[in-house]
Amino acid sequence: MILKSQVEWVLHCCAILASLPDGRFLSTKSLAELHGLPKEYLSKALQSLSQAGLVHTSLGPSGGYRLAKAPGELTFLDIIEAVEGGGRTFVCNNIRANNPCRPKGYCESSPCAIARIMWEADEAWRGKLRSVTLADLVATLAEEVRPDIWAGTFEWVMKRTG
Amino acid sequence: MILKSQVEWVLHCCAILASLPDGRFLSTKSLAELHGLPKEYLSKALQSLSQAGLVHTSLGPSGGYRLAKAPGELTFLDIIEAVEGGGRTFVCNNIRANNPCRPKGYCESSPCAIARIMWEADEAWRGKLRSVTLADLVATLAEEVRPDIWAGTFEWVMKRTG
Repeated sequence: MILKSQVEWVLHCCAILASLPDGRFLSTKSLAELHGLPKEYLSKALQSLSQAGLVHTSLGPSGGYRLAKAPGELTFLDIIEAVEGGGRTFVCNNIRANNPCRPKGYCESSPCAIARIMWEADEAWRGKLRSVTLADLVATLAEEVRPDIWAGTFEWVMKRTG
Repeated sequence: MILKSQVEWVLHCCAILASLPDGRFLSTKSLAELHGLPKEYLSKALQSLSQAGLVHTSLGPSGGYRLAKAPGELTFLDIIEAVEGGGRTFVCNNIRANNPCRPKGYCESSPCAIARIMWEADEAWRGKLRSVTLADLVATLAEEVRPDIWAGTFEWVMKRTG
């Protein structure tokens, strides 16, 4: 079970979009260039963010993307679910109902113990991802990325915003 | 990101194997029949358990599978990793290194903040799955499954063990 590469891509892109001043947009082309990613595939991933209402889009030559919410209101889980979907990682097909030792047509109404444990694990994963916002990420990056690279990247981005 | 159906299958099969008396084996055919599963596909999933050292195999007409460890020593995570592999659910491709604003060839030696958060979430998922043993599952099932079905299933299985 491995997440799509696009999850990594959009998390990095959102970290960049979080630094845009109000009303400015950054193009797919620039986001792709900054991260060394194939523009066409990145474009599809960014469209998933748009469909989930996490980013606003502007069309035209200076068009692109900007966050639709404040970085403190966007969690890792929001961003990941935009790309991966919001379904649970374990799907219960209720195979206990196939047991030939059961009365015909009988099945408990409550979920199977196996599914419950799997869903608790799923929720532990989601809980962690829900607890970290884009603002938390940007604060960590601001501490960890070398100041000249951090400032240089901001300058590079600002030259390209529409 | 969805786990394979085989994860559900082998968890149910291990719950049944946990009840076998010492030295008895249950065939793929019986496990498939009990759970209403396609024998050939189930066979592959059970071979994954064998390759991971979680079950012993016996060949011949009365052959089949039995647990290689006590149910209290087998965790959900052991069983799931046998089918899904033990790799992390998030793979970091270190795309920060592609940033054209970085000095050529420079990259931090420590993992990216995004990867660290994703790996913490992965570990929250694994931690939950590591905390539940097959013995815990069987104890829950023994409480929840209707006594006549529980006893009938045990009888059905015992008739078929080799």
